[in-house]
Amino acid sequence: MTPEEFRKFGHRLIDWLADYRAGIEERPVMAQVRPGDIKKQLPTAPPEQPEAMEAVLADLDRVVMPGLSHWQHPRFFGYFPGNALLAGILADFVSTGLGVLGLAWQSSPAVTEVEEVMADWVRQMVGLSESWSGVIQDTASTSTLVALISARERTTDYALSRGGLQAEEQPLAVYVSAHSHSSVDKGALLAGFGRANLRLVPFDAEYGMRADALEDLVRSDLAAGVRPCAIVATVGTTATTAIDPVRGLAEIARRNKIWLHVDAAMAGSAMILPECRWMWDGIEGADSLVINVHKWLGAPFDCSLYYVRDPQHLIRVMSTNPSFLQSSVDGQVKSLRDWGIPLGRRFRALKLWFLIREQGVEALRARLRRDMANAQWLSEQVAATPGWRVLVPARLQTVCVRHEPPGLSGETLDRHTLGWAERINRSGAAYLTPAVVDGRWMVRVSIGALATERDDVAAVWQAMRQAAEDSATEN
Amino acid sequence: MTPEEFRKFGHRLIDWLADYRAGIEERPVMAQVRPGDIKKQLPTAPPEQPEAMEAVLADLDRVVMPGLSHWQHPRFFGYFPGNALLAGILADFVSTGLGVLGLAWQSSPAVTEVEEVMADWVRQMVGLSESWSGVIQDTASTSTLVALISARERTTDYALSRGGLQAEEQPLAVYVSAHSHSSVDKGALLAGFGRANLRLVPFDAEYGMRADALEDLVRSDLAAGVRPCAIVATVGTTATTAIDPVRGLAEIARRNKIWLHVDAAMAGSAMILPECRWMWDGIEGADSLVINVHKWLGAPFDCSLYYVRDPQHLIRVMSTNPSFLQSSVDGQVKSLRDWGIPLGRRFRALKLWFLIREQGVEALRARLRRDMANAQWLSEQVAATPGWRVLVPARLQTVCVRHEPPGLSGETLDRHTLGWAERINRSGAAYLTPAVVDGRWMVRVSIGALATERDDVAAVWQAMRQAAEDSATEN
Repeated sequence: MTPEEFRKFGHRLIDWLADYRAGIEERPVMAQVRPGDIKKQLPTAPPEQPEAMEAVLADLDRVVMPGLSHWQHPRFFGYFPGNALLAGILADFVSTGLGVLGLAWQSSPAVTEVEEVMADWVRQMVGLSESWSGVIQDTASTSTLVALISARERTTDYALSRGGLQAEEQPLAVYVSAHSHSSVDKGALLAGFGRANLRLVPFDAEYGMRADALEDLVRSDLAAGVRPCAIVATVGTTATTAIDPVRGLAEIARRNKIWLHVDAAMAGSAMILPECRWMWDGIEGADSLVINVHKWLGAPFDCSLYYVRDPQHLIRVMSTNPSFLQSSVDGQVKSLRDWGIPLGRRFRALKLWFLIREQGVEALRARLRRDMANAQWLSEQVAATPGWRVLVPARLQTVCVRHEPPGLSGETLDRHTLGWAERINRSGAAYLTPAVVDGRWMVRVSIGALATERDDVAAVWQAMRQAAEDSATEN
Repeated sequence: MTPEEFRKFGHRLIDWLADYRAGIEERPVMAQVRPGDIKKQLPTAPPEQPEAMEAVLADLDRVVMPGLSHWQHPRFFGYFPGNALLAGILADFVSTGLGVLGLAWQSSPAVTEVEEVMADWVRQMVGLSESWSGVIQDTASTSTLVALISARERTTDYALSRGGLQAEEQPLAVYVSAHSHSSVDKGALLAGFGRANLRLVPFDAEYGMRADALEDLVRSDLAAGVRPCAIVATVGTTATTAIDPVRGLAEIARRNKIWLHVDAAMAGSAMILPECRWMWDGIEGADSLVINVHKWLGAPFDCSLYYVRDPQHLIRVMSTNPSFLQSSVDGQVKSLRDWGIPLGRRFRALKLWFLIREQGVEALRARLRRDMANAQWLSEQVAATPGWRVLVPARLQTVCVRHEPPGLSGETLDRHTLGWAERINRSGAAYLTPAVVDGRWMVRVSIGALATERDDVAAVWQAMRQAAEDSATEN
């Protein structure tokens, strides 16, 4: 493809994408395809000869588009808001189009320096002190794995430089909650701790980790010769946006020299609102934290910000310095390859640069406040409606609900819950993701897609009542 | 930003990128800035109020562009070819613009199914048997970490479900070469093995791992009660594109039940050429392998293909299944979140779909053959020139050279080598990355940027001779 052909098809795709975004509400939110529907339309072998771009673009419409669930749709209430703001999208086009890699400062200095400044902009936006240093990772799963490996190496005084985790005589324990994200367990297992050394700390009535219970576990581990290594606190859990008490956990961490990692992947965006910062009160006592700005805040995926208090420790754990990456400016510059797992580095900081400048922080705050007000409104509607229940106070932007018609309980109630949610999803009118809390299914209405306004929330609430009624009648 | 504003600025950026690619050879290849030059032009705090996109785009030209080293430049001979083919760039625009995430099949079915088919297309292109299953990771660093964790769990019969690596009584060893990529050591340390359990297998005259030496190490570990866990073989090392003897290593791996991971990050692309497949002869005996199609082949970064023989094992190591990701089609579909570390998933497979169709495999083969012929040509020129030396036979696309004027040796020679390379880099005429082999610096001329033709190779060779002469005269 020549630059002139790129120009031609690029213009066509810009129009295609602008039309997509302008008309997205006409599409069913959830893909209406069955397993294998996409795959069977693709040739099983690659083409030997070139195909016309016209054919590729036609297949994009014909094959791919029906296979998408539309995260940018105003009635997308699934998972979490995965906003891709248009200014951030343009920035990512620039990043991909330039095709430069930040393996080392010298390999494209702007990749390192813009990232450094953008991580600091976000630090200020969420009200963290200057003692934090940030870097962009792909996802919170990776950030949390990096945090747990960092904790492991601090507790063992860099066992990686000796016999590794396998040479440690006293086992190391990690403290999580049953409401932690699945990536936390996964990270601990991948880091080698083993499930037997994962402590599930009991939670309170609102699903926050209990500091007193943590303290008991730490004490009994110490008595048994187990070394407490890391605590993972969550600010805004996935199922219910529950909040672990960071200050209390930080105090236990400090007294026992335990690494405290805070998973604020979801709620971190809300920390741009001063009125929300109570949610992570005590955060300055943590060792590391992750905020997924590719969620609610709106940087196109992927863009997970990982902050640490002690970058020298991170670098010592992650550092590699092969000769082909050395240059005469080493020592004067940051080597972001030593701040995470991958060596290669996209120019992801551009997304934040474009997005924050085009929006301004005030507008970002206004949008998040809109979403929280919408969640409050929905929560009130649900609470005021007979047969419906709000399961936990909606402090952020997720409303956890259940329709509990008389006579239904246990597995019958579960079937009803999954039934009405799936009815809505299959209709294409909105997209909701159920989750289990206290052993029973409920439905999460995760508000916060960029395009979601009050009338969209009212519409999903109408659809929920209708679907629940239809579902109850049919069964 | 409204869709209409997106249209306006999108069109402008398409033209900007088309102009960038069409006129790239006018730019200095390596950024001519000093540490801090970019950073000091950026405001230290984020803007409260929105800024005009015109201002952002003006700063892109003014602040960012001088801070880039241009990987798509025809005279980029640094690191490795990091090609971003224009059709792949358009595909990535679509991916970013759609803003859909493949957390689960249902969250956008096409993300999973197109990836499945594209991994299989590449499998066929490189001549692997049907017994391999592939998935896209971000980089080879991550793929290799996943491989080493998988090896750890196979050897320990899933210690992660019990006490983890820390509960194992007999230490596990990993076998690598001093010429393995830095990410291999790093992956082994992050996976918890510890440096004391990393065995550096001696290499032969052409920097390939010695199978006989590996066998000796395995035998002595077994005698000492150490469990051989993983061998990492490299096909196309970073410094010299050396080739480890996969067949011989696979045989040792098979006999001793050791996991064999093959790092073909660089040379994997060349496996689309039947005449190159001898380089990984025996590959069917490996357990896992990685090919970075974001290198020479030309998918815009990031796109690292990771293949395994036993996907069920990978899934068992990586699997998580929280309630909010479950759906009624589970069991009928692949959950690619269980094939790697991150949960979130960009629609990266689109890059391969566009690129392979727009090019056709025949054209991809022709381009790689062009680059290998260019490397041969340069190699012959260097070898035929007094005072110059080719350090290793150029089997792929990298030519390792040294200018050895009479009377220079040891550190004086090193200074000369680094001096003439830096002279070229600072001039902006071409970009080369030196590396250390056998304790002495040499210069790698890594050929294979999409735009690099014979006259570009002739030009860098002319620049090398001139710079070496100038450097020798000055010192």
